[in-house]
Amino acid sequence: MEKNSTMILLTSDVPNKKETVCIFGTGDFGRSLGYKMMQCGYSIVFGSRSIQAPGLIPEGATVLPYAEAAETSDVIILAVQRVHYSFLENLGDILRGKVLVDVSNNLKMNQYPESNAEYLSWLVPRSKVVKAFNTVSAWALQSGALDASRQVFVCGDDSKSKEKVMEIVRSLGLTPLDKGSLLAATEIENYPLQLFPMWKYPIYLSLALSAFFFFYCVIRDVIYSHVEKGKDFSFFIAITIPNRVCPIVALILLALVYLPGIFAAILQLCRGTKYSRFPDWLDQWMLCRKQLGLVALAYAFLHVLYTLVIPIRYYVRWRINSYVLSQVFNNKTDPFNYANGWISDSYVALGILGFFLFVLLGITSLPSVSNSVNWREFRFVQSYLGYLTLVLCTAHTLVYGGKRFLNTASYPWFLPAAYILSLIIPCIVLVMKFFLIFPCIDRPLTNIRQGWERKPKDLSQKNSSYCRSAV
Amino acid sequence: MEKNSTMILLTSDVPNKKETVCIFGTGDFGRSLGYKMMQCGYSIVFGSRSIQAPGLIPEGATVLPYAEAAETSDVIILAVQRVHYSFLENLGDILRGKVLVDVSNNLKMNQYPESNAEYLSWLVPRSKVVKAFNTVSAWALQSGALDASRQVFVCGDDSKSKEKVMEIVRSLGLTPLDKGSLLAATEIENYPLQLFPMWKYPIYLSLALSAFFFFYCVIRDVIYSHVEKGKDFSFFIAITIPNRVCPIVALILLALVYLPGIFAAILQLCRGTKYSRFPDWLDQWMLCRKQLGLVALAYAFLHVLYTLVIPIRYYVRWRINSYVLSQVFNNKTDPFNYANGWISDSYVALGILGFFLFVLLGITSLPSVSNSVNWREFRFVQSYLGYLTLVLCTAHTLVYGGKRFLNTASYPWFLPAAYILSLIIPCIVLVMKFFLIFPCIDRPLTNIRQGWERKPKDLSQKNSSYCRSAV
Amino acid sequence: MEKNSTMILLTSDVPNKKETVCIFGTGDFGRSLGYKMMQCGYSIVFGSRSIQAPGLIPEGATVLPYAEAAETSDVIILAVQRVHYSFLENLGDILRGKVLVDVSNNLKMNQYPESNAEYLSWLVPRSKVVKAFNTVSAWALQSGALDASRQVFVCGDDSKSKEKVMEIVRSLGLTPLDKGSLLAATEIENYPLQLFPMWKYPIYLSLALSAFFFFYCVIRDVIYSHVEKGKDFSFFIAITIPNRVCPIVALILLALVYLPGIFAAILQLCRGTKYSRFPDWLDQWMLCRKQLGLVALAYAFLHVLYTLVIPIRYYVRWRINSYVLSQVFNNKTDPFNYANGWISDSYVALGILGFFLFVLLGITSLPSVSNSVNWREFRFVQSYLGYLTLVLCTAHTLVYGGKRFLNTASYPWFLPAAYILSLIIPCIVLVMKFFLIFPCIDRPLTNIRQGWERKPKDLSQKNSSYCRSAV
Repeated sequence: MEKNSTMILLTSDVPNKKETVCIFGTGDFGRSLGYKMMQCGYSIVFGSRSIQAPGLIPEGATVLPYAEAAETSDVIILAVQRVHYSFLENLGDILRGKVLVDVSNNLKMNQYPESNAEYLSWLVPRSKVVKAFNTVSAWALQSGALDASRQVFVCGDDSKSKEKVMEIVRSLGLTPLDKGSLLAATEIENYPLQLFPMWKYPIYLSLALSAFFFFYCVIRDVIYSHVEKGKDFSFFIAITIPNRVCPIVALILLALVYLPGIFAAILQLCRGTKYSRFPDWLDQWMLCRKQLGLVALAYAFLHVLYTLVIPIRYYVRWRINSYVLSQVFNNKTDPFNYANGWISDSYVALGILGFFLFVLLGITSLPSVSNSVNWREFRFVQSYLGYLTLVLCTAHTLVYGGKRFLNTASYPWFLPAAYILSLIIPCIVLVMKFFLIFPCIDRPLTNIRQGWERKPKDLSQKNSSYCRSAV
Repeated sequence: MEKNSTMILLTSDVPNKKETVCIFGTGDFGRSLGYKMMQCGYSIVFGSRSIQAPGLIPEGATVLPYAEAAETSDVIILAVQRVHYSFLENLGDILRGKVLVDVSNNLKMNQYPESNAEYLSWLVPRSKVVKAFNTVSAWALQSGALDASRQVFVCGDDSKSKEKVMEIVRSLGLTPLDKGSLLAATEIENYPLQLFPMWKYPIYLSLALSAFFFFYCVIRDVIYSHVEKGKDFSFFIAITIPNRVCPIVALILLALVYLPGIFAAILQLCRGTKYSRFPDWLDQWMLCRKQLGLVALAYAFLHVLYTLVIPIRYYVRWRINSYVLSQVFNNKTDPFNYANGWISDSYVALGILGFFLFVLLGITSLPSVSNSVNWREFRFVQSYLGYLTLVLCTAHTLVYGGKRFLNTASYPWFLPAAYILSLIIPCIVLVMKFFLIFPCIDRPLTNIRQGWERKPKDLSQKNSSYCRSAV
Repeated sequence: MEKNSTMILLTSDVPNKKETVCIFGTGDFGRSLGYKMMQCGYSIVFGSRSIQAPGLIPEGATVLPYAEAAETSDVIILAVQRVHYSFLENLGDILRGKVLVDVSNNLKMNQYPESNAEYLSWLVPRSKVVKAFNTVSAWALQSGALDASRQVFVCGDDSKSKEKVMEIVRSLGLTPLDKGSLLAATEIENYPLQLFPMWKYPIYLSLALSAFFFFYCVIRDVIYSHVEKGKDFSFFIAITIPNRVCPIVALILLALVYLPGIFAAILQLCRGTKYSRFPDWLDQWMLCRKQLGLVALAYAFLHVLYTLVIPIRYYVRWRINSYVLSQVFNNKTDPFNYANGWISDSYVALGILGFFLFVLLGITSLPSVSNSVNWREFRFVQSYLGYLTLVLCTAHTLVYGGKRFLNTASYPWFLPAAYILSLIIPCIVLVMKFFLIFPCIDRPLTNIRQGWERKPKDLSQKNSSYCRSAV
């Protein structure tokens, strides 16, 4: 410890009065954590198999064999991989009563039957195991760039040990989050491995829908024109067709946000109880409604941008010019068509209002905003305003169709315009919702949702259905 | 308890090693909570008047009479309504020293003189009452969809009991928030009943202003044209008129955000002290400035959308066409008007900059953003940038008016254009603010705000004014 | 204390059963805090040099000399300035074991060698010093408008005292945030003094770039036209030129977000280790990348707005009109140019997609959103999506240039168009990144980042380089 004087100089702004902490393992994470802790005033003792290779160890830290290192501190941070935990069995006596911090991560989700921390607690039963630090990256610790990961999930069965570890977390400038007992370790260990798990299905679905409608529109607008009329509209695939696909996908996804709620209501009405569990696909669907809605909002946002650039496109300017010139050369003027004025303005206005409400819904689903509203307010926004958005967007599409709707002459190769296909699901949802808010249906449904059940004929049968729902 | 083996199978991923918790009441919320807790590894004993109707009880839970149930656990969750609390008086001995969790809600705000939890604590004085879980809905517990309500407010006088309850909250995957002693129970019980209380006045005001200006513009633009000129401009009510109403309401609301601050400054200057309380209406007004500003931002956003779609409207395209055609048929071209070029570009540019700053202000008032800035930064953004926004938006409207301003020939039925009306309040605010930043006025005001008082002639009078301010 | 009865009336909704707290100092902050605490049910005793001037003291509070006041309570809030702390030395015996809350702030950052709280703890070593409340403003306490500052940072060496203070903080409706031991006091005291410290360089840089490109464009577009062609395009400075400057600055800033990462990779490759510290300027640069990106987003947002208003500008409408009229009077029509159709649509489409991803990145960097993603998800968004954004925006600019690129005839006064200058840095970044993802370069880099080092020839040299990096 003759280098301590240097250490004090290095960290002159923080008096070196904090306790000694022992870190087992001199790998990248162990070194990074040790280095960061030394910057914050702790004395660090590394435990290692060999006491070689001191070149990698931060200046000022000591390296000792495991057993000797463990004796220097009450808190031992275990920065080795799970497969090497076995050496701890021999240290059982030394580790007795000490706080053992498991920082390990796995390579895959649920790689082992039990979490690393629980396995550790089984290996060294007399020490107090605390899970922490696994969500922090070594790089972030070194560079100080901790944008994503200021939160450190902590769990453990012994609350005093947990408090001790949380104090260390705080002194490193991170935010500890107590997740309860060691049972939470599985969840904490899976956390850093996941990549937007709730977003997977919504994004796949939206990509599949986009691809389908994109090719549908390419066939209908580009290939048809090329084959039948010999015109080259291939440049439509840059803006014109995306601006058809985006609103269609947005509208379908928005309708799919509200469809599972309607299925659920029908199931509850048929079963006469809310205590039967929904089928798995419906459960999954209901849980990713927020993500579906946000993906829909992204498509709606793209639609708005694609629409607003229309007047600055060369093609549009050229078409308007040609139209004016054709009027000039034919020496006639088109009179103002009041019906067109109404239809054009009202579908645009409906679209604007729908998009405005959609953005409101999106803002409300920001974590910090939704955390600051209560349950009643959240339901008001997400259900009333949500349905209003769906109604406005469906009306926007219907009015856009306007008179063209049933004009089959405009179906090239018998393909209806894509926006007609997009209306199917929203209209089904709205019609069914319309029936569900009839008092004669709404009243029993409300009762069921408040816990009432249709007179159960056979108790044991009901019982077993509840049981199934608990799986 | 012979069903325990099934239970373990059902929840195989969480070892059943947590404690037993007793729930009084087998209503919807009690069952949902019990079911959720069993999923998380707790053993649940329901206390009930009768031990009938076990069909509704989650599989694996036991139902016992109140007294027997209470003996099985140290933590008793009371899921019955306040009107039925009286039975607890007889259980006083059994409940002694136990943690009694009040989860109840009322139907109206401040329905009873004291909160349910305080009433409970008075009924069973020897038990430790903790208020919790009332902000969570039964449906959310069952479905796992906990978007709005991961926060569970907890309060209680005994900190150990509170910690015990917070541990249960955490193990259910929710976030406990310690609100202090049982005095906070009134606030916690009112919380789930409120529906955007701070938004009420700003939204009513904005709707009233919108309605007034909408009808004003309908009279001026649609009815006047119809009566005097026989033209049908009824389709204006879809976009043209909303696009006049939105900026007007946005500008007025934005000015109303800064007006109370000016009233407050004048009051403080007149009184020579900041320790006199403002009148109630001013207090109320100052507290909902953030909401006023956000409603104004929503109107400004709509105004932007309505403006940007102008060139794709059928009416606008037709009018531009007719204008070109009229030039062609009259065989003359209008030369470029430099003044018009300047005015058109600069009012649009002012509007863009104003909207940009307005969006910045809106982002800064997101809870997570405003929590991460300090007081000095917040004041810088909300007051400097806020006034700059108001100046830009007022200038935008003034330049928009341009030369037309005093051209009374353009006043149909002696009604001035609506935008002229909208300028009244912003101009008043800006003129008064201009005087308030004069050093000879700003200096005494700053002193007063730092605690200085004009020499009080009569101490007792001052005293009583402070006293009034404490009401 | 004969006024207590009044006090109870004043605060009738909160029973007066909380403890007595002593506040030293009757300045503005002390009075405001005392007043707020009395509203929340505490009894307040003010300690003062003289017991004069009771007119300023909130009704119901008592004023006593310091020593007597200190004896009434276990918690003493010290609301005097640091320069007056010396009187406390004489009160050492009375303050022994009491909780002393330091609420002071300084006028400048790091005004004194040690923090006020540490100085206090050195002055009165036998009392338990807790730092708190310094981030709350007196005005906010009085008015109840606590938007920015609900968070109260608390630190102290004695955890029981800290818990006591945090309980008081909670009961005032504020959120305590435990920052650890008294060492954190320096940071807590500097916090309220800073004004967007991380934003300084990005904003200065963006303003400098804006100014440079603004004058460049003014010279090239306005002055050149005026001098050489005698035309007055001065109104271009309202929209046309800002709409050139904004995308240029946005693109350069976005490229500057990714440039330091490339420098870092090259440095690590050359040094063969990640344990050598980067030069200071690179460290600084890497830490403000988020702010650089958000400023770039603001410029991109302005660019979008400026672009979308193009068709409603008087100048643009007039130019399109003249173009149509010139065609009419020359009696010829321009045929549709397919290449122009493709170029126009694809550069607009690239811009839309780039802006869309940019907005996504911006949303992900909101504190509440980035807190709810894990490290892997954050890196995915900020690095993959970020580079995709840069690629799209660079391609948007390249395609915008289109055929004009090498047409030197279009260089007035030999000045290339500003967008050509803006492409330099983005292209450098993308080319270098392209080489860095070659497997032969990527593999050693990944190894280095996981802690591998190129065989160190001289251990002591390595050691000292690590040592330097710890400074």
